[in-house]
Amino acid sequence: MPANGLSAPQDGATHSVPGAEDALSALTALVRTDLEACNRLIVERMQSPVALIPQLAAHIVAAGGKRLRPLLTLAAARLCGYPAGGHRHVALAACVEFIHTATLLHDDVVDESALRRGQASANALFGNKASVLVGDFLFARAFRLMVQDGSLKVLAILSEAAATIAEGEVLQLVTQNDTTTTEAQYLQVIEGKTAALFAAATRVGAVVADRPEAEEAALDAYGRNLGIAFQLVDDALDYAAEQERLGKTIGDDFREGKITMPVLLAFTRGTEAERAFWRRALEQREQRPEDLAMAQGLMQRHDALADTVARARDYGDAALAALRVFPDSPERRALADIVAFCIDRAR
Amino acid sequence: MPANGLSAPQDGATHSVPGAEDALSALTALVRTDLEACNRLIVERMQSPVALIPQLAAHIVAAGGKRLRPLLTLAAARLCGYPAGGHRHVALAACVEFIHTATLLHDDVVDESALRRGQASANALFGNKASVLVGDFLFARAFRLMVQDGSLKVLAILSEAAATIAEGEVLQLVTQNDTTTTEAQYLQVIEGKTAALFAAATRVGAVVADRPEAEEAALDAYGRNLGIAFQLVDDALDYAAEQERLGKTIGDDFREGKITMPVLLAFTRGTEAERAFWRRALEQREQRPEDLAMAQGLMQRHDALADTVARARDYGDAALAALRVFPDSPERRALADIVAFCIDRAR
Repeated sequence: MPANGLSAPQDGATHSVPGAEDALSALTALVRTDLEACNRLIVERMQSPVALIPQLAAHIVAAGGKRLRPLLTLAAARLCGYPAGGHRHVALAACVEFIHTATLLHDDVVDESALRRGQASANALFGNKASVLVGDFLFARAFRLMVQDGSLKVLAILSEAAATIAEGEVLQLVTQNDTTTTEAQYLQVIEGKTAALFAAATRVGAVVADRPEAEEAALDAYGRNLGIAFQLVDDALDYAAEQERLGKTIGDDFREGKITMPVLLAFTRGTEAERAFWRRALEQREQRPEDLAMAQGLMQRHDALADTVARARDYGDAALAALRVFPDSPERRALADIVAFCIDRAR
Repeated sequence: MPANGLSAPQDGATHSVPGAEDALSALTALVRTDLEACNRLIVERMQSPVALIPQLAAHIVAAGGKRLRPLLTLAAARLCGYPAGGHRHVALAACVEFIHTATLLHDDVVDESALRRGQASANALFGNKASVLVGDFLFARAFRLMVQDGSLKVLAILSEAAATIAEGEVLQLVTQNDTTTTEAQYLQVIEGKTAALFAAATRVGAVVADRPEAEEAALDAYGRNLGIAFQLVDDALDYAAEQERLGKTIGDDFREGKITMPVLLAFTRGTEAERAFWRRALEQREQRPEDLAMAQGLMQRHDALADTVARARDYGDAALAALRVFPDSPERRALADIVAFCIDRAR
């Protein structure tokens, strides 16, 4: 069974990387003290006299996600020589996590049309409005953390990333249910909605350590390529048979009619009859119970998942290449191993 | 007919202020060149390669609202001696309008429960998700404008305001449909959702002009009290019979079960049978076609609208008092006249 949890591809594009699943633990261990400080700051800054705010925020932010983005900020800063126990990278790591959480909350908002199809999402417990408003609160708190940091350069990087994230999310909305979406548009979507924050999260590590532009650019390239790889794999996992067997939800993207890389590949490589299937299911959104299995079969036939992961590997390689401007160190090794972790996610 | 468009109150608490409706035109004329620069900046900064963004943003931001908040920033800066034709107050006025527009877009988001009652709102054209994401984009662009301004003090004021707005909106959501809401809670809601941005909009005028803390605090107090007065009147207008006659929509707050000052006054002063009516209509939200008229009748009986406007006048007086630290000038007179304009809105 391949470690990335995808059903076995025919071309061997996916393969098991022993220990990749431990890369996250290794990275976490490396910055444990700073991560704990970051977690405390997160809990402290999501407080509000309005009780629903910490209550709803805790539902997502404190639920013990893997904290991948703040870990990247902490490790990037340490890689650049910023001292462990310092507070700037901790504050910015919390800030990055708040932006990520706000994005998740806003992503949870359900459209009227989706509701009519009975697709209530994770926001079912609190409702659309609460998700939007608590997300806004976390965005505002993220900016407050940045302002307190006091670096206009950091503020420029993160506010630009926030605008790019929103652009990516809107473009995703626009291309949804549109099978004429191009690969370039898809890449623009994931560069915005995912990679922009990864890039900002790692770039600010160089900024707090006051490193030259070349190192800033290298960490930006590392984060950006890692983010694209991460999202490509995410989009493949949404159709992965193995995930299903492991009791994970799959098919969310399919039900929503998102046009992701696996769909683009299967659609482009498909027969006219197959394209008619994709148009019916994703554009007209007339879905039958057996359609997801049909989609998975077509992806298998056209190597769509394996090739999506293969592209993720290319971006992963670019992320690794970007790290080469830094001398060898435990941080550099940990950040390099995270690339494999993001690609070979078996969970 | 009283100029504020409310049905004639019995105690004369509302009265016509001749020319109050011209106060906005006078203020606009006073800063016309700067306002035009602000409008150009707004249009420029809401551009994006993602076409839906300027399209949806234009729907609200460029639709030619009265631009009250940016006008306040421009006039406050000029009052403090900041030169006409300068760019900082123009950029911050645009920033304030972006935050306001983003708030409007997020306020448009409809809850599942509201949808089930068939209450599609202004976002019907584009949908919940587009409203949220384009709002996020405008928030991010607002922060970008602030970062470019380069003042950490301005950034602190406006990011704090953004968090307070979100807190106010969440508290409003929490107190909705709850007739045990106290007047203190209601005031906390409107201080957050409305007055915080008014206060920040005027305070930054003193900051760009590099004026002493006393003048900053005075402009903060002016904006905050004006904002509370503005919202109190808004909440009264939502039940005003005169508005209905003029073809304006009324009763939105009633249908949503918002607990506003007129409701609090009528509820507190009502009989037990009347309170049962309010509970049924606003808490259980079992509303019949004749209920809005019933609510208006109860408010008339208990002077609820007139007394809401009377309280607005008290806050308006506090706003006027705050202006007294400044010497007489056309800007001070224009800002003073805006207080009457906000209270005596006939349209």
